[in-house]
Amino acid sequence: MASLARNLRAEAAGMRGGERLSSSRMLVERYRVSPVTVSRALALLAAEGVVVTRPGSGTFVAERRSGSGPVDFGWQSVPLGHRALDVDGLSQLLAPAPAGAIALIGGYLPDEAQPLRALAAASARAARRPNAWGVPPLSGIPELRAWFGSLVGADPGDVLIADGGQAALWTILRSVLQPGAPLLMESPTYHGAISAARAAGLSPVPVPMDGDGVRPGLLAEAFAMTGARAFYTQPTFQNPTGVVLSPERRREVVEVARAAGAFVIEDDYARHLAITSPPPPLVTGDRDGTVIHIASLTKATAPSLRIAGVVARGPVAERLRATQLVESFFPARPLQETALELVTSPAWPRHLRAVSADLRRRRDVLAAALAEHLPEAHLTRLPQGGLHLWVRLPDGRDDLLVRDAARANGVLVGPGRPYFPAEPPAPHLRLSYSTATDEALSEGVRRLAAALRD
Amino acid sequence: MASLARNLRAEAAGMRGGERLSSSRMLVERYRVSPVTVSRALALLAAEGVVVTRPGSGTFVAERRSGSGPVDFGWQSVPLGHRALDVDGLSQLLAPAPAGAIALIGGYLPDEAQPLRALAAASARAARRPNAWGVPPLSGIPELRAWFGSLVGADPGDVLIADGGQAALWTILRSVLQPGAPLLMESPTYHGAISAARAAGLSPVPVPMDGDGVRPGLLAEAFAMTGARAFYTQPTFQNPTGVVLSPERRREVVEVARAAGAFVIEDDYARHLAITSPPPPLVTGDRDGTVIHIASLTKATAPSLRIAGVVARGPVAERLRATQLVESFFPARPLQETALELVTSPAWPRHLRAVSADLRRRRDVLAAALAEHLPEAHLTRLPQGGLHLWVRLPDGRDDLLVRDAARANGVLVGPGRPYFPAEPPAPHLRLSYSTATDEALSEGVRRLAAALRD
Repeated sequence: MASLARNLRAEAAGMRGGERLSSSRMLVERYRVSPVTVSRALALLAAEGVVVTRPGSGTFVAERRSGSGPVDFGWQSVPLGHRALDVDGLSQLLAPAPAGAIALIGGYLPDEAQPLRALAAASARAARRPNAWGVPPLSGIPELRAWFGSLVGADPGDVLIADGGQAALWTILRSVLQPGAPLLMESPTYHGAISAARAAGLSPVPVPMDGDGVRPGLLAEAFAMTGARAFYTQPTFQNPTGVVLSPERRREVVEVARAAGAFVIEDDYARHLAITSPPPPLVTGDRDGTVIHIASLTKATAPSLRIAGVVARGPVAERLRATQLVESFFPARPLQETALELVTSPAWPRHLRAVSADLRRRRDVLAAALAEHLPEAHLTRLPQGGLHLWVRLPDGRDDLLVRDAARANGVLVGPGRPYFPAEPPAPHLRLSYSTATDEALSEGVRRLAAALRD
Repeated sequence: MASLARNLRAEAAGMRGGERLSSSRMLVERYRVSPVTVSRALALLAAEGVVVTRPGSGTFVAERRSGSGPVDFGWQSVPLGHRALDVDGLSQLLAPAPAGAIALIGGYLPDEAQPLRALAAASARAARRPNAWGVPPLSGIPELRAWFGSLVGADPGDVLIADGGQAALWTILRSVLQPGAPLLMESPTYHGAISAARAAGLSPVPVPMDGDGVRPGLLAEAFAMTGARAFYTQPTFQNPTGVVLSPERRREVVEVARAAGAFVIEDDYARHLAITSPPPPLVTGDRDGTVIHIASLTKATAPSLRIAGVVARGPVAERLRATQLVESFFPARPLQETALELVTSPAWPRHLRAVSADLRRRRDVLAAALAEHLPEAHLTRLPQGGLHLWVRLPDGRDDLLVRDAARANGVLVGPGRPYFPAEPPAPHLRLSYSTATDEALSEGVRRLAAALRD
């Protein structure tokens, strides 16, 4: 009966209001059901208001309701089903700070450190290049691929230009792993990567780190235990900890993955945000196409220069190209041309030197303010690059409550919890030194200290 | 034994070449296996070259091979597994035509019909707007959302700005359907949508059309039979057929989907490519958030203005925003600002009128050439918008062979096969009138006719 009712409901939906349904006798024949079943199904549809029965003349499609009254979107819950998306952290990170609040959050260079004049000039030059709004080569414009390749000694043919680091990571996760697969990740790690992994239907598996980065023995154990085929890592100025994977471990990590028949996804997001020069990226020591390397330009420039270069070798490179094509075609050519004009301009090396000096000063100001005003919080290390300090709170403090209290006191801080793929072992805060002025960095820490003591 | 060998292999990978493994006795204890199992596992690893056994002194990690010799990427086949991507059609569509060939393929306006001067001016104005390279509001800049909303009478709050139509479609498919779910599609339909559906792990279910568009009765039957929760449609100047869904059927299609508790994904890709004004889009008659509407600016402007507006109401709108955020953050602000400057400039209505007149002339030239030189091919209809003619070949011809013969004769044509989610009922070609000059359109058909007769 339910099946007949469903068919009749669909049939009625395809007819106009007032139109006559087939007779009961015809329905009995057509659907090979009993007359009782037909009359029950019609009664159900009449009760639902889908049809109207007029004794003696038959059953008619009900006139549709008019457009008045509040709309009920409840029906969408059924097709939408379960939600695997967790984007609160990303939304908060990208939201503008409320007026008067000091932001110790944020993942981009401060406005005054962005190369806005050089970007404007690069953009104007890009607009004058031939075919500026046309279809670019599908893997990216050749000169930009060559530039990204030159950073890590890779062949230009092994580079794919993508719509920024997050899109690159998404393309990689979708390409190399099937829904349900495990993904090894450092713990803690960038929460946008955890969100992307969950959205792709993957199971994040945390692997512990120490001050030299991920621990190769435990990484090997995690591969053996889970059968994982990929490890996501930020070996350089890791987000949020600032840890740099030591040179010896770089070799070991690649060997461990190679032995497990797995990919290493190297998110080299902060190479251009170095205060002290870091070791070469993992991909430079890779021979077998084990490492898939992401280099983004966004972090070192401005949030809307959404251009990244992905280095990959072997069949996986073709898989990545196909995935990007079907998911979004190609990154807009004017952005690619602008990026190329920028990084090949004389302003570029000057900009990188200025960024390095600026970050060093800001980092030191924030670290000094912490030492002075918040000695009970433990700065896990003084990072040699990147945009953040990773601060351990006294045991027993709840990072989310601290975040709320700080906000009420006029300073925005990032709770540590979202950076852990599983339960956090201790409460932490991530404090960005990239957004506020020097004075605001100090004042922000004073406000945070006051909130913590309340 | 295999499990022990795997563990030891991983352990060895985490050690340096020449380092000594734990003794057999310790391995027996640690892994709780017999001495025979340990010695077999070590023998296996020695055979693989992973370890070296020196009698009397123990087992050591083998020195790694040097970087010489050709690289074997074969190991990647295992983690990469099955490939669900089919992008040959897309790649060919976006590839530049070889020199000397006449292209009767392509999905964009001809270069000379693109508003390149207006785009350059819009881009220059966009670059001067405050915060041009900053983080835009995550759903898009408000004025552009309002503009897309105004096209279909939707509230600006119901609009999400996306990175072009393909990215918008991908975000929608990933948001409303789970891998393995069926997706109803017109047959034939845009092959990029078929590719995206397959890449998302969906099962395309073809629903037949006639000259008035998809047939609502068969659509209702397909919903009932498959339990599908979404129908992808191009109701206006459908690609490839050029069919316009009739006004009565527009209402019926939405009602049928509503009765099935399913979404209608309305890909309104060609509204700005009208030769004769089409009926209002499906979303204007929708009350329950049934229709998710995609409007792209790319088709009416240039390939690299990758900006689309998605209209969705109810919880699904939030799902779409979250999906886009985790997959790619946001469309670059300069592109959004450029799009806004362009569509609010006095040049925009003039451009649309010019496009309409240009497409009418080109369509008529190509249709006339077909009637004159290729009478045995049947033009299914004279489309009232869009960029293509859909031509039925005589029975028994193979569209792929015709494509190859035409290419050998200096003209590029699109085979019909990739546009069918299942086996094609008859051989077709899709001929674009958007790329070649008037003279080349005629000459291209002459070359095609010669190839067909060989």
